[in-house]
Amino acid sequence: MIKNKFDALFSQYFSFWEHLTPKQKDLLNAHTSMVSYPKNTNLHSGTDECAGLIIVKTGQLRIYLLSEDGREITLYRLFPGDICILSASCVLDAITFDVSIDAVEDAELLNISAAAFHQVTYENIYAEAFAYRLATDRFSDVMWAMQQILFMGMDKRLAIFLADELAKSKSNEIHMTQEQIAKYIGTAREVVSRMIKYFSNDGIVEPFRGGIRILDKQKLYRYL
Amino acid sequence: MIKNKFDALFSQYFSFWEHLTPKQKDLLNAHTSMVSYPKNTNLHSGTDECAGLIIVKTGQLRIYLLSEDGREITLYRLFPGDICILSASCVLDAITFDVSIDAVEDAELLNISAAAFHQVTYENIYAEAFAYRLATDRFSDVMWAMQQILFMGMDKRLAIFLADELAKSKSNEIHMTQEQIAKYIGTAREVVSRMIKYFSNDGIVEPFRGGIRILDKQKLYRYL
Repeated sequence: MIKNKFDALFSQYFSFWEHLTPKQKDLLNAHTSMVSYPKNTNLHSGTDECAGLIIVKTGQLRIYLLSEDGREITLYRLFPGDICILSASCVLDAITFDVSIDAVEDAELLNISAAAFHQVTYENIYAEAFAYRLATDRFSDVMWAMQQILFMGMDKRLAIFLADELAKSKSNEIHMTQEQIAKYIGTAREVVSRMIKYFSNDGIVEPFRGGIRILDKQKLYRYL
Repeated sequence: MIKNKFDALFSQYFSFWEHLTPKQKDLLNAHTSMVSYPKNTNLHSGTDECAGLIIVKTGQLRIYLLSEDGREITLYRLFPGDICILSASCVLDAITFDVSIDAVEDAELLNISAAAFHQVTYENIYAEAFAYRLATDRFSDVMWAMQQILFMGMDKRLAIFLADELAKSKSNEIHMTQEQIAKYIGTAREVVSRMIKYFSNDGIVEPFRGGIRILDKQKLYRYL
């Protein structure tokens, strides 16, 4: 193994990198590993031990709240180049809540162990500031989601979701069940089913087995 | 005016104080003022200019989201000794959302101007880390509120129960222990106790030994 295998990568992701001592750099290098998760697997759930800091290399992660009775609320998603800080929540005293994390696509991740990341943030104020700034970024994401969920009508929420997926998929079809969509936008399947019927009556969408086809984007965008 | 009027106070509130240069200390001293807000006044709303950092000396602040159609979601409250960071959101790039802030009791506040606080957090990594750590503390508060609102529906369940009992009793008092209420609505006493505290902070109810007094029916009915 090359001693400073991840130096180039870390210097690109971490604004605090230049402020670390050689020993701190070595520590992070030594406690980092590549991990892979297949599509639709759980990486982390509330009760698990803290996974540490995660850098998304490929794929997509979904960070969500899970209720005792199994309901889910999607907080935000992470894409290649994003860093997951809530998987390292045990490192930061100011984070007192737990989230669940799934890979929603095959994902390759770089995982820095919680213990190593903790030591560096504890010793180095630049690393600490970086971690808390990242947490505050996610705070902003969550506030956005919260406003969606609490204030918007379901028509608007579903329209935003469909428009987002459409933008990502580069086709007119979204391959997701109503059950899955309901989980993503934090509601019940029956509610999604009703709204899709409503949109369908309006000529906006057409449901098919395992997905939804968008027929009229202009009309859909009017709901945004 | 004494030049370093607030030094003693700042050194108590700010863990970064010892890391500031004399010039930075002077800057914060020079741009801090005592302000008073009477009960039930608005300090800050989403579209306002950023007020800066606020230290609560006396009274109570309520931080909430306000929807376009006038609905409110209480995120958390601040009490004497607490520091309000979201009133200085313009200082921190990572905060991209707006909140509203009311004084819910007569409040005396120490206000550090956004510009001065911005300069210090920009120049000093300890001050920056402090600010983002504080924001992350509030993130945790918000996640707690979010779980209450989205998952438990406990606010609604308790409100329905109280409104029903109110209709039956023909008085403003419900003579039932929190233990009994918990049994009726199918939850734990601790949960009822926490929700009653939440309602009580909001001026809706007032617990007394062996019961609950309803102070504001209109507010209670909003939860139904």
